[in-house]
Amino acid sequence: MPISSHSGSISGNDAPTPWYDEEKQQEECGVFGVWNATDAAALTALGLHALQHRGQEATGIVAYDGKAFSAHKGLGLVSDVFNDTRIMAGLPGHMAIGHNRYATTGATLVRNIQPLYADFEFGGFAVAHNGNLTNAETLRKALVRRGCIFQSTTDTEALIHLIAVSLYANVVDRLIDALKQVEGAYSITALSKEALIGARDPNGVRPLVLGKIENASPHSTPAWVLASETCALDIVGAEFVRDIEPGEIVIINDAGVRSLMPFSEKQRRFCIFEYIYFARPDSLVDGRSVYNARKLIGQELARESAIEADVVVPVPDSGVPSAMGYSTESGIPFELGIIRNHYIGRTFIEPTDQIRHLGVKLKHSTNKNVLNGKRVILVDDSIVRGTTSRKIVEMVRAAGATEVHMRISSPPTTHSCFYGIDTPERSKLLAANHTVEEMAKLLGVDSLAFISLDGLYRALGEHGRDIENMRYCDACFTGYYSLPLVDKEEESRQSQLPLSAPFLKQVSGL
Amino acid sequence: MPISSHSGSISGNDAPTPWYDEEKQQEECGVFGVWNATDAAALTALGLHALQHRGQEATGIVAYDGKAFSAHKGLGLVSDVFNDTRIMAGLPGHMAIGHNRYATTGATLVRNIQPLYADFEFGGFAVAHNGNLTNAETLRKALVRRGCIFQSTTDTEALIHLIAVSLYANVVDRLIDALKQVEGAYSITALSKEALIGARDPNGVRPLVLGKIENASPHSTPAWVLASETCALDIVGAEFVRDIEPGEIVIINDAGVRSLMPFSEKQRRFCIFEYIYFARPDSLVDGRSVYNARKLIGQELARESAIEADVVVPVPDSGVPSAMGYSTESGIPFELGIIRNHYIGRTFIEPTDQIRHLGVKLKHSTNKNVLNGKRVILVDDSIVRGTTSRKIVEMVRAAGATEVHMRISSPPTTHSCFYGIDTPERSKLLAANHTVEEMAKLLGVDSLAFISLDGLYRALGEHGRDIENMRYCDACFTGYYSLPLVDKEEESRQSQLPLSAPFLKQVSGL
Amino acid sequence: MPISSHSGSISGNDAPTPWYDEEKQQEECGVFGVWNATDAAALTALGLHALQHRGQEATGIVAYDGKAFSAHKGLGLVSDVFNDTRIMAGLPGHMAIGHNRYATTGATLVRNIQPLYADFEFGGFAVAHNGNLTNAETLRKALVRRGCIFQSTTDTEALIHLIAVSLYANVVDRLIDALKQVEGAYSITALSKEALIGARDPNGVRPLVLGKIENASPHSTPAWVLASETCALDIVGAEFVRDIEPGEIVIINDAGVRSLMPFSEKQRRFCIFEYIYFARPDSLVDGRSVYNARKLIGQELARESAIEADVVVPVPDSGVPSAMGYSTESGIPFELGIIRNHYIGRTFIEPTDQIRHLGVKLKHSTNKNVLNGKRVILVDDSIVRGTTSRKIVEMVRAAGATEVHMRISSPPTTHSCFYGIDTPERSKLLAANHTVEEMAKLLGVDSLAFISLDGLYRALGEHGRDIENMRYCDACFTGYYSLPLVDKEEESRQSQLPLSAPFLKQVSGL
Amino acid sequence: MPISSHSGSISGNDAPTPWYDEEKQQEECGVFGVWNATDAAALTALGLHALQHRGQEATGIVAYDGKAFSAHKGLGLVSDVFNDTRIMAGLPGHMAIGHNRYATTGATLVRNIQPLYADFEFGGFAVAHNGNLTNAETLRKALVRRGCIFQSTTDTEALIHLIAVSLYANVVDRLIDALKQVEGAYSITALSKEALIGARDPNGVRPLVLGKIENASPHSTPAWVLASETCALDIVGAEFVRDIEPGEIVIINDAGVRSLMPFSEKQRRFCIFEYIYFARPDSLVDGRSVYNARKLIGQELARESAIEADVVVPVPDSGVPSAMGYSTESGIPFELGIIRNHYIGRTFIEPTDQIRHLGVKLKHSTNKNVLNGKRVILVDDSIVRGTTSRKIVEMVRAAGATEVHMRISSPPTTHSCFYGIDTPERSKLLAANHTVEEMAKLLGVDSLAFISLDGLYRALGEHGRDIENMRYCDACFTGYYSLPLVDKEEESRQSQLPLSAPFLKQVSGL
Repeated sequence: MPISSHSGSISGNDAPTPWYDEEKQQEECGVFGVWNATDAAALTALGLHALQHRGQEATGIVAYDGKAFSAHKGLGLVSDVFNDTRIMAGLPGHMAIGHNRYATTGATLVRNIQPLYADFEFGGFAVAHNGNLTNAETLRKALVRRGCIFQSTTDTEALIHLIAVSLYANVVDRLIDALKQVEGAYSITALSKEALIGARDPNGVRPLVLGKIENASPHSTPAWVLASETCALDIVGAEFVRDIEPGEIVIINDAGVRSLMPFSEKQRRFCIFEYIYFARPDSLVDGRSVYNARKLIGQELARESAIEADVVVPVPDSGVPSAMGYSTESGIPFELGIIRNHYIGRTFIEPTDQIRHLGVKLKHSTNKNVLNGKRVILVDDSIVRGTTSRKIVEMVRAAGATEVHMRISSPPTTHSCFYGIDTPERSKLLAANHTVEEMAKLLGVDSLAFISLDGLYRALGEHGRDIENMRYCDACFTGYYSLPLVDKEEESRQSQLPLSAPFLKQVSGL
Repeated sequence: MPISSHSGSISGNDAPTPWYDEEKQQEECGVFGVWNATDAAALTALGLHALQHRGQEATGIVAYDGKAFSAHKGLGLVSDVFNDTRIMAGLPGHMAIGHNRYATTGATLVRNIQPLYADFEFGGFAVAHNGNLTNAETLRKALVRRGCIFQSTTDTEALIHLIAVSLYANVVDRLIDALKQVEGAYSITALSKEALIGARDPNGVRPLVLGKIENASPHSTPAWVLASETCALDIVGAEFVRDIEPGEIVIINDAGVRSLMPFSEKQRRFCIFEYIYFARPDSLVDGRSVYNARKLIGQELARESAIEADVVVPVPDSGVPSAMGYSTESGIPFELGIIRNHYIGRTFIEPTDQIRHLGVKLKHSTNKNVLNGKRVILVDDSIVRGTTSRKIVEMVRAAGATEVHMRISSPPTTHSCFYGIDTPERSKLLAANHTVEEMAKLLGVDSLAFISLDGLYRALGEHGRDIENMRYCDACFTGYYSLPLVDKEEESRQSQLPLSAPFLKQVSGL
Repeated sequence: MPISSHSGSISGNDAPTPWYDEEKQQEECGVFGVWNATDAAALTALGLHALQHRGQEATGIVAYDGKAFSAHKGLGLVSDVFNDTRIMAGLPGHMAIGHNRYATTGATLVRNIQPLYADFEFGGFAVAHNGNLTNAETLRKALVRRGCIFQSTTDTEALIHLIAVSLYANVVDRLIDALKQVEGAYSITALSKEALIGARDPNGVRPLVLGKIENASPHSTPAWVLASETCALDIVGAEFVRDIEPGEIVIINDAGVRSLMPFSEKQRRFCIFEYIYFARPDSLVDGRSVYNARKLIGQELARESAIEADVVVPVPDSGVPSAMGYSTESGIPFELGIIRNHYIGRTFIEPTDQIRHLGVKLKHSTNKNVLNGKRVILVDDSIVRGTTSRKIVEMVRAAGATEVHMRISSPPTTHSCFYGIDTPERSKLLAANHTVEEMAKLLGVDSLAFISLDGLYRALGEHGRDIENMRYCDACFTGYYSLPLVDKEEESRQSQLPLSAPFLKQVSGL
Repeated sequence: MPISSHSGSISGNDAPTPWYDEEKQQEECGVFGVWNATDAAALTALGLHALQHRGQEATGIVAYDGKAFSAHKGLGLVSDVFNDTRIMAGLPGHMAIGHNRYATTGATLVRNIQPLYADFEFGGFAVAHNGNLTNAETLRKALVRRGCIFQSTTDTEALIHLIAVSLYANVVDRLIDALKQVEGAYSITALSKEALIGARDPNGVRPLVLGKIENASPHSTPAWVLASETCALDIVGAEFVRDIEPGEIVIINDAGVRSLMPFSEKQRRFCIFEYIYFARPDSLVDGRSVYNARKLIGQELARESAIEADVVVPVPDSGVPSAMGYSTESGIPFELGIIRNHYIGRTFIEPTDQIRHLGVKLKHSTNKNVLNGKRVILVDDSIVRGTTSRKIVEMVRAAGATEVHMRISSPPTTHSCFYGIDTPERSKLLAANHTVEEMAKLLGVDSLAFISLDGLYRALGEHGRDIENMRYCDACFTGYYSLPLVDKEEESRQSQLPLSAPFLKQVSGL
């Protein structure tokens, strides 16, 4: 993913202002890999399609057919980029990896699209990365000083150069050497001539699962699949085998799956927000059903912040399971009071003032019949900037709701994420700057409640948040950053100095 | 919409075979119109966006600024075609109409995109049409014989030529003259220099509603809006005024709304399928909430065909409200056992055999956690070909369901629609060729039940189907075609003769 | 070609201002047709390529395979529009016609691209037209009043409607009926199910030639070709048979070539400018070699306006043959003192003031070595606005020429053409508003001379211009318009009235 | 330019087979640079336009505004790639360099388009290169072994990495360090924050000229321009100052032009083919007028191989000046017997067999009137494969020529170029495998003569070829390769070993 400290200044493109602020935090990337399957690239495209929610900006696949690597990358959805049989025919082989990139509103460089690829002395190597390296900029400066030439503005490229300059002889040793020098979060799929490789950082921040397809190739040997979530195993007919463990590297080739644990052990820090919003409801991540987790969170939320009302209405689509849980626990009927329009494209007519005041209505509309004259409990998963929430509340009131009570299935989002999620700066986070009472007023609701931090942990089967035995990263709710933030600290040390070499501004984005 | 009898032979384009048969019948078109609003074209684009479910193939807007008409049309979604401020700036004026065209899998001609426009002696005239004229081909032949040159392959163009050759002096008289010569279903918005015009056929098959926006223009006069459904009024902030009546023509200009009833009265025949599937759940059509209707149908379905089970699972998105009704009535928990992927583009990688056997999984995936070990009631709105249903059942079983009971919130679809819906020929309709028992076997379910025809009418507040006082068209369930099928009868008379003049085959689709 | 009186107001597109005024008058269209050849569409594309100089804006082909007509049209050069085997495969059959459209700087409508096509009662009919109908607007008004709907803004569409409403039974009689009602210049190729048809107006203003290919089809019968110029016969390996005569209609089918002369005889008025500039040097038109004619004109010019100098330098490419003639006659050496850059695209960077003052240098550059210190005779074919000429003179002086004498191989262009050439209005024609002395001053030359009108006729083998026996149209030099200008006269009668129905403004140009 | 030894295997794209073999050798690249001019990027675009004949495949510009570097690159002609004011506005600054790439028929990678750019420790650096490094592949292997990651498949990238890993402190010293390690031909323009840099290899194989524009910026200081040929100075209004000398490096900044001569002196080896075909006739290169040189060569050719005939006909456009010289010397009239069609696009309809036998006629056509019944001397500049020549001879005979005598203004092309020209392998060079008599037979001419090697030197003002004092590279005629061919020798040593790491195959060419 982009080096966040600089990505703003790199961009030459003035992106069109989006009609309204995107409310949600954005997952940054999904990864996939397959070994030993006929049509490996097609399976990878399917897997990436199932992981589309983890990144809609761009996508790419690198395949290997035993002789040559081939690649195709493009801006847009998987179904837009891989929409031609000739493209798929250009990606032959039984091994492939792929990557989805997250949606930004700003500049987009084709050369940043993953998987990244390099010709090393020992042959080609491709890597796809979900997460964020927190010392990438520091590493980049050292590598440039040494004579390395960077082509992208992604943190992942630092990893590639570390591999290139490593003194170890084989690719796995070089990768381990490189990974030992990086800090931060990563779930990686990589492809060399010898193996499909998966790796997960020692804290296990981002998910990575292993699956298996029997009879996916003409040989009687099984195919192996790596993916960010189990939903990508399902779509290719792969059976879920297990999670890749925090700190584990798996080397997959015709000899099977070999597991290495080259790092010293660290505490688990699985991103708790994957359960709240990022992962797909039909996925298992880190061994647990996302859908179930969300319903349980909704139930806990109902217990913590019950209120008398006529209907429980989710903000679709992400608020649906927790609203169902809330309804079950409270006994208040669940109704589809807000309809989501899925036909919305990436760009649309820019509004005049006349149109703009019509508000948020492109993506959501109200089902007046359900809301008119009712006391409404509105269930959503999180509040980031609050812009969309305010408009939704307005819509619900305009549809005739007599009371609007907002219930949020996460604690207040008060801190930015530096481990692979695109959150706004703290100054833009509503909960970082306002009390819950102030927020209720700003959003125009009659009452507002968030699930408590302990309640969230209880819903996930713990006794509450226990800093000694905590297995999740909850930094966005607590500011408790347990992985070191090297670049960020360096940046604040340097903040009075001018920026280092500005990157090339590409007019065309090529 | 296209003249169905010929559209196959016109097409020069070999459309890519879709990955799997599209299960649903497709609504053919949505219409919109606005008079006296600043940014009329932008409001029209918003309205068309809200009506996107009624047609995703192509879209167009014609605007009038008191001096000149301007037009923009294109293939694709509203948000793709109207995505540029320069395009909107090219559509100035306070009056505009617009049209969405349905999605076909075959050829697509730019010159077929509506609104259609013609320069008449008295000035420009544009028309947008939802429905299907059942004597269009017969009229076309007579008009060509008279010297008219057709440019599109749509039924709507016959209407334009009837207006052109009418001997009446003004545009409204000419339109009435023309409408008196056509048969079939139509809800129309039209624009001349003098007025925005709305018209609905005497049987009122397709919906058309009237709305009003106070303060939409610098003058203190209100803006008037015509739209297929109320959801398009909501998005532009218009208040619902009333339905346009069957057989009514409304002439809207600065003098207000003038209503004409120039046709002899006929029985109401509102399309009952609008409630089952076509219309958006948050719309009122023909005076009734679509969402409520669907929940009531689900409840009636539960009463008619109760069965013991563990979960009620909708086939998303259209099956959700009736599944909720089913769950409420039966007391069996409602669960999201099937997840719909909304990122699917129009085209995607064409599968090899290896991939093809993976089945329907691009659009839907199963939430195993909810289905595994459960007796599942699967609720869907209709079965057309059955292809998708069979694959969904397979998926649900593969996810571990021990029993699958399918419940359909419409009677068996046994006949084609000739009034504005794209249904396959009867030979392809599963229910036209199989008993319910056979269908259950083919779909692989443990039981299958459709709502009864009387049950459907009961859910809509009638005492059952009463052919004397019936206010709906239910021809697709009964073959009871109450509007004459002129072309179809002519065609069967002529079927041994060679086809009339073949239309020009356009390589490019321009 | 476009109806000139209205085309300005139709256009919604703001065309980019070209860097400098295009100096030359522009030929408006080339036509081609072939009967009985394997790959008729490919031969037509080749023929249109050879005729590319007659129109670079757009091009189209309609083919017929005995069962159906197929068409492909597009904006741009022939080699850009017909650049795909799939396009050619979509144009099957042994018969085809094609059309090149001229380059304008303004709006361009896809629906204006020829061949125009219509489905008549008796079947499909396509027509391609070079020339300009001088009563098209008058006819259009009458036809619209009758109920005809026009789709394009071309004069040629009037012809199509006249055929559609004709009461004659067969297509040839209808075409003759229609042609009898039109005034102005036309060379036409048309295609029906029964025949390839060629027609030339009774004055024979535009060229049209007949050719023959032996063994172009599997049958032993020859293929017949119609084309604007013989260079299009050469490229397809066709032998030149003869010119189509003024007022002649040829009906070509398997029975051979049938000739009709349905019009009363008129005086020949072949466009004399075809020899001066429009036609390709390697063509024969109206029975004479264009290259030879130009060299003879150059010789006559040298005789009429001899001057002492060191080099004769053509303005390339069109001035080359007359400069060669001038050099031969005068004995002054011919040198390539100006080089033309053929890589120039249609659009280019829009200049800032800084760049703009650099002048005309995108298309032409000087060969300083040849010009420095020399007395230069600059030979060009015509002066329209004079803008380019002035810049060329500047360049030549900047390259070191001590004297610049300009010699023009046509008389002064003082009048607009209404018979198929795109000339500016008279107010923009330099020679219409200035004496030769004034022009010399404005262009910055030491002397300026045009060939005399009599000299031009002498070079073409006449004794001089003889109004009694004149076989050429020379209206652009004399204002002697021998074909009636119906629309133009009507327009001046109506000039105080408001314009008739404004045409639809298409934002996209589709 | 591409590393020729590998470029075949890199390409994933199957380029469309061109209709006929491209006869000429292709120049590989033109370079341009400007310092201290308002609109530096626009001037660069103009300069590249004038140098378009040196490369039509792709083009790029890097500009610097004192704060940031910006770039735009694209496939196609300069006028296609830089056709938008927004693109030019995205390239601000008073300094810029640019590059044209040659046309290949094979794969084309966007990442290969120059100028190449890198962020070094000391800031941004861009380089544009004309020529060919003959040890690039050897250097690449060593650099990859050291940990460098290559992104393009061009020889020029080796230079960039040599600069990156150089231990010198400033950019000029690093560039000199790098250039001392490369072998082969280069004329370079480069841009850093401190200076515009020009460099020419010690043998001076490719041209590079220095020009000056007074008053090109708001300051009273002049702008400095570097370009491959003087025609690019002319178009921007720059005055020719001098050639950059072989082995010279010029450092241009606000302090003026500083000259360094860091290499040991070598013999001049200016490419003699620049005079015969590559350079534009209106250019001075290496101090001599190209147009004059060609006319003198034509005269020498006429003296060496006189023959009785009726007309001298050039193969346009490149054969024109030498044909003029031939005509002058022989007294036989010069006639345009072959016309070149400049409207030909890059791609065109792929022919069926029926069409293919029509031959070469897309680009050339005959002017029968001039050839019929005549004894023709056909003058061309060179024969590479002979394919086009044979077809031209056929055309000339088909036009009625009674005798065809071919005269070539270069000696037989018997060897490939490794210094920056795209020649076919020797096995495809007609003259490498046939005697002149055999060639005459194969081409179907009555006689064939090439200018002698001594004659060519005489025409250029020498006494003949003198190997002791030779100032030209004539390896393509002699095989006398005076610059070392390191990669080629390495390759033949390694030819039994497998190829090194295959590069990534990009489906899309991105």
